[in-house]
Amino acid sequence: MIIKGKNYRTVWMEGKVVRMINQPLLPHRFEIVDLYDTIEVHDSIKNMIVRGAPAIGATAAYAMAQAALKYDGSDLAELKKDLRAAYDFLSKARPTAQDLFDGLDYVYNVIVSDRSIDKIKKKAIDLAEDYAENSIEACEKIGEYGSTLIKDGFRILTHCNAGALATVDYGTALAPIRTAHYAGKKIFVYADETRPRSQGSRLTAFELVSEGIPHAIIADNAAGYFMKRKEIDMVIVGSDRTAMNGDVCNKIGTYEKALLAYENKIPFYVAIPLTTIDRNCPNGEAIPIEERSDEEVLYAYGWNDSGKFERVRIAPEKSRGRNPAFDVTPAKYVTGLITPKGIIKANKKEIERLL
Amino acid sequence: MIIKGKNYRTVWMEGKVVRMINQPLLPHRFEIVDLYDTIEVHDSIKNMIVRGAPAIGATAAYAMAQAALKYDGSDLAELKKDLRAAYDFLSKARPTAQDLFDGLDYVYNVIVSDRSIDKIKKKAIDLAEDYAENSIEACEKIGEYGSTLIKDGFRILTHCNAGALATVDYGTALAPIRTAHYAGKKIFVYADETRPRSQGSRLTAFELVSEGIPHAIIADNAAGYFMKRKEIDMVIVGSDRTAMNGDVCNKIGTYEKALLAYENKIPFYVAIPLTTIDRNCPNGEAIPIEERSDEEVLYAYGWNDSGKFERVRIAPEKSRGRNPAFDVTPAKYVTGLITPKGIIKANKKEIERLL
Repeated sequence: MIIKGKNYRTVWMEGKVVRMINQPLLPHRFEIVDLYDTIEVHDSIKNMIVRGAPAIGATAAYAMAQAALKYDGSDLAELKKDLRAAYDFLSKARPTAQDLFDGLDYVYNVIVSDRSIDKIKKKAIDLAEDYAENSIEACEKIGEYGSTLIKDGFRILTHCNAGALATVDYGTALAPIRTAHYAGKKIFVYADETRPRSQGSRLTAFELVSEGIPHAIIADNAAGYFMKRKEIDMVIVGSDRTAMNGDVCNKIGTYEKALLAYENKIPFYVAIPLTTIDRNCPNGEAIPIEERSDEEVLYAYGWNDSGKFERVRIAPEKSRGRNPAFDVTPAKYVTGLITPKGIIKANKKEIERLL
Repeated sequence: MIIKGKNYRTVWMEGKVVRMINQPLLPHRFEIVDLYDTIEVHDSIKNMIVRGAPAIGATAAYAMAQAALKYDGSDLAELKKDLRAAYDFLSKARPTAQDLFDGLDYVYNVIVSDRSIDKIKKKAIDLAEDYAENSIEACEKIGEYGSTLIKDGFRILTHCNAGALATVDYGTALAPIRTAHYAGKKIFVYADETRPRSQGSRLTAFELVSEGIPHAIIADNAAGYFMKRKEIDMVIVGSDRTAMNGDVCNKIGTYEKALLAYENKIPFYVAIPLTTIDRNCPNGEAIPIEERSDEEVLYAYGWNDSGKFERVRIAPEKSRGRNPAFDVTPAKYVTGLITPKGIIKANKKEIERLL
């Protein structure tokens, strides 16, 4: 995406360094973080410096490449041990997004059987770059297919950030919105704030401002109000993991918006690269849901009037919170899945045919 | 309610001064505000120093008494002109809560026909005190009836604050919870944060801490997650205005929670004093919905780590928001209305029989 006149990806690699946009500082400060080893990349995922399933997938692929490139010995067994350790450690960074495992596997599963250290290094970086390129291409395809659903004048609700910042570039849920906008369609986006981490008001709004797409930020509580008044024509969200029956696991609150859309007869689409589909997951109930620190609920994070980044407590000192980061939207509420291979129904038959 | 060992009402009157708890400063600072004239009381309602339909009603009643008491002339016509001006001005403070008009009418409609300045003053303050007492009594009755619905071990969700702070004392939605707790029932409360003004995490949690009632604050987005997992047994909320067909207008997001409860077969109760019922309102569509400044959505308000009250911006400078403060929950999603006269179905027949 274009930021301050320059084209940026969310995550990329230079030499042995994984570089990424520092997302918790957006929209107020644009900063690049350099990560020098597996532990730093692991922590960047865990602490949501990078977030969004496809972006996590690419970060994981780069992290595997980094682990290979950083090996400076000549013992193949030792390198493979290092790679396995990196794989295992990285796979524990966050539990829900399928792409984390997909990105790790994409690099690891190929290089693990090679017998040359040099070839492993070369393959690892090629595969990681390949993964990132595929991801962007998939997003652009999602944009093409998805934009055919968007009519001139549409008012579209999105939840959380499934934009360029959640992918390597271009986005999943925001891809059809971008493509429709570039095609000259007049659209208006309602961006749910998406508490507790406010990815909607911070990141989605940042992207919409950058693209000049008209929008309004609303409290998560207000989505139903606008749907009931028929001021929303369509909902598009992303997915962190998609089950084989079409159940979709996405940012907490997605289930609420899906049910509201269903009740108000508003089309509810989920934009997914194939990397979010978990072939081993029969339905949403089987997906592990991350519960994060309750500090995210008890505090809000932003910039004070002096421009300083601060957290402010919005709860009594003695109160605690509960903070599940994702929920499952049953397939029955999903009008369709927008994929790089076309728009399909959210059911087992159509998902299997696609894969 | 007991705060720092002393019993407080949300709003009361001493001499010609209307006094109230300064709610935007809770839970971190407990402060009483003194209001000396109609303009100050009007602004305290508009700026939500006092909020919650029954508390606004009592404030309005006291404001009418204050307007009478402050008249120091001897011209009956002039006093009545003053009272009418106060009535008109106060009635514009906020558009949605029915109790504002109910509280104004309760005092104004009686004193306006009196012909003695002294009697008007005496009646005005007596009526206002009467109104506040009735309100507390109604809340206690709501507590008695509502608590019969709460079984030992129940996990109860509430949205916004319909507690002591939203009334003169004791609360509406929190009244059954208080009564059940005092009766020794083991209960657990999930308090929705209630963005954009966080009345759940700030005020409801404050009351629950004060009462020692176990609870967790959750993001508004997470209510559906807990309902779907059957970790919530019951929902109780308040109402700002109740239509004759049983439609309920309450804090933004209530509609979402009601639909989720309906879908997950969880009882959804609305606790209302009779003052929230609008006899002239056939259904929810007829209720005017306040839209407040979008700053509430673009900022979060709380205490930084140095204990200073601040707002932090959570959105790009160029983004705007939309901020409806209430929504309408259709009667079909309401399991029952908990009233001071018993629990009834949310329909015209039962509401008419009650009045």
